[in-house]
Amino acid sequence: MGIIVQKYGGTSLANPERIKSVAGRVIETKKRGNDVVVVVSAMGDTTDELISLYKKISDNPSERERDMLLSTGEQVSCALLSMAIHSRGYKALSFTGAQAGIITDGVYSKARILQINSRKILKELKKNKVVIIAGFQGVNINSEITTLGRGGSDTTAVVLAAGLKAELCEIYTDVEGVFTTDPRIVTGAKKLKSISYDEMLELASLGAKVLHPRAVECAKEYKLPLVVRSSFSRKEGTVILPKESIEKERPVTGIACDKSAAKISILSVPDRPGVAAQLFSNLAKSNINVDMIIQNIRRGRVNDISFTVSREDLKRAVEITKRVAKKLKADEVLFDRNAAKVSIVGAGMTSRPGVASEMFHALARAGVNIDMISTSEIKVSCLIEAKDSDKAVRSLHKRFGLSK
Amino acid sequence: MGIIVQKYGGTSLANPERIKSVAGRVIETKKRGNDVVVVVSAMGDTTDELISLYKKISDNPSERERDMLLSTGEQVSCALLSMAIHSRGYKALSFTGAQAGIITDGVYSKARILQINSRKILKELKKNKVVIIAGFQGVNINSEITTLGRGGSDTTAVVLAAGLKAELCEIYTDVEGVFTTDPRIVTGAKKLKSISYDEMLELASLGAKVLHPRAVECAKEYKLPLVVRSSFSRKEGTVILPKESIEKERPVTGIACDKSAAKISILSVPDRPGVAAQLFSNLAKSNINVDMIIQNIRRGRVNDISFTVSREDLKRAVEITKRVAKKLKADEVLFDRNAAKVSIVGAGMTSRPGVASEMFHALARAGVNIDMISTSEIKVSCLIEAKDSDKAVRSLHKRFGLSK
Repeated sequence: MGIIVQKYGGTSLANPERIKSVAGRVIETKKRGNDVVVVVSAMGDTTDELISLYKKISDNPSERERDMLLSTGEQVSCALLSMAIHSRGYKALSFTGAQAGIITDGVYSKARILQINSRKILKELKKNKVVIIAGFQGVNINSEITTLGRGGSDTTAVVLAAGLKAELCEIYTDVEGVFTTDPRIVTGAKKLKSISYDEMLELASLGAKVLHPRAVECAKEYKLPLVVRSSFSRKEGTVILPKESIEKERPVTGIACDKSAAKISILSVPDRPGVAAQLFSNLAKSNINVDMIIQNIRRGRVNDISFTVSREDLKRAVEITKRVAKKLKADEVLFDRNAAKVSIVGAGMTSRPGVASEMFHALARAGVNIDMISTSEIKVSCLIEAKDSDKAVRSLHKRFGLSK
Repeated sequence: MGIIVQKYGGTSLANPERIKSVAGRVIETKKRGNDVVVVVSAMGDTTDELISLYKKISDNPSERERDMLLSTGEQVSCALLSMAIHSRGYKALSFTGAQAGIITDGVYSKARILQINSRKILKELKKNKVVIIAGFQGVNINSEITTLGRGGSDTTAVVLAAGLKAELCEIYTDVEGVFTTDPRIVTGAKKLKSISYDEMLELASLGAKVLHPRAVECAKEYKLPLVVRSSFSRKEGTVILPKESIEKERPVTGIACDKSAAKISILSVPDRPGVAAQLFSNLAKSNINVDMIIQNIRRGRVNDISFTVSREDLKRAVEITKRVAKKLKADEVLFDRNAAKVSIVGAGMTSRPGVASEMFHALARAGVNIDMISTSEIKVSCLIEAKDSDKAVRSLHKRFGLSK
């Protein structure tokens, strides 16, 4: 009899028929005696369509106006879902991010949620209403609309679930759960029954695309049970749980691949303290997320620094890096926009040595050249050429026995 | 050097190219040294598309959710216009109705504006920004989104112009101004250089479709100079001014025709006080606008009451009328959904007797049967069959010499 937060992605809401089918699913959950809060994404390709619309006007528009524009997508779908629930005879009410009191830090296009107005939502739940909230958006303290960036609706759902002390947060998407790797690349990819927050976090950050990493991070912090499942089938999805509740049989749980990486290198930087800080703080100030970072000291006390960013940030990142390179009297800035990052993830890795070297061997045997390596407790990532990425994933999936 | 409020309709903003062209026009006005506030409608057919979208989910959705949905159209166009102005190197800022502090009475789908936050807008104008405001929308005191109904963007523009003490309010549309009648019906229709508020009010209410009547009403109240002109040409439009400044040469200024009228009759109502009040207060409570009303006392002290409503309100109006008829023990309720109202409008009419009878003669000669008649100081309206409407307009336009 608790609160259940359900999030439906764009594919699940792509047309009126699917919206009606989601309404049916929401009503089922309601009928089982739960209070239901629904978070929606924009319908189908709406966000991409809005982006291509503004690109006809401006290549690089003000982020404030971009957020103003994009936030309409979720507003449309929350109103329509509410209508669909009404027409089945149930009570529902839609809220924009602003109306739900979702206050953000105000960074346009990449905002983080600071607080939500749970009281307002709880009040409507008490009136037996399904509350539907536009995902991906909030407002800053000056009522300026800010979006949370791609995948932000997942974050909206988890933050709401945490704030409302929900029993469960269900993420409905177009896949049946979390797989050992992308089933479109490896036909033998298997659905995982459960996975730990940490593993999911690595998989999510690494481009598994099922769940936004910030959402997983937040679920982990609040120990909120999270389920990823399909809105198109009745099959059970994947449960995301704390580490201890999962038996570790295999060192590797899943293979992730991010095909939209780009690499920047800054060559022959004088080796003195504060060099890296200066570069990366400038990138951070422009809200560019840097992923892998490698630094090598060469003869003569000069450094080569290489790092990766997402391809869409590449242009801005190169500009900033060149500016910093000039100041630091570095030799040169190189970049490569066609990189991919392939990773093995597994909480079981910590207790089994040699997993990384197994990975390097497998890649070598598949003829895949490794450009950068970075490791954490539960993952090993290799930067490779984008064209090799499918081959790399297939060879690793086989090597670590994930099809069994 | 004053403030100019410009409103651009959906056709003027139908695609990225047109939005850029509107941006050019706004910048021109800005360059002439004015502060510019722009009010935008939704792009092209967006509103109709959103309506056909929700109709696939619900025939008769909650008006709150309908407003939530429809208000996204204007939000999209204000963000895009702002981007287009930025990309030309000028400063601009878009506001939703809520952000501009447009507070309404809260009647969904037909809200009236109670106040606006002029201080917030003036503050941005002082920073040399063009302020772009989503028309057609506001919020009630609980931050619920309410739309102003069709044509509501005109009202937004005029209310803003009044609140900001603007010098001028320009309504940009797809026609070059106010014509003696619809040029699509009468090829000899002429553009008027000027027209009085009162005449425009009659023309607007009667379906001339150039300007929303509430907008004219509000302009009249604040003696705000209003110009209707085309965003597709450089031609001067029509100025709408107080009566006294216009020379009256002809008794009739224009012919209007509303083809979407519907008539309801309630027969043999017992003649006692309060009967009409009971009927029309029930219709008003449901926000149904009643236009013409006629009551005849027949032999035996029973009344026949006939009235017209817009065709889209007909179904609800008939239901209410039948309910009231039963209570009042009336004989029968009849309705006709294919009526049209043709009207002659002119401030010069008051000083020239016989104008009405000239109208009736012209219609008779054209073979048009008159079903109801209603008159005001500056107009005469006849309810006729919808199929006769074009014929009627042509005969009247000729009779009153408007092509000369």
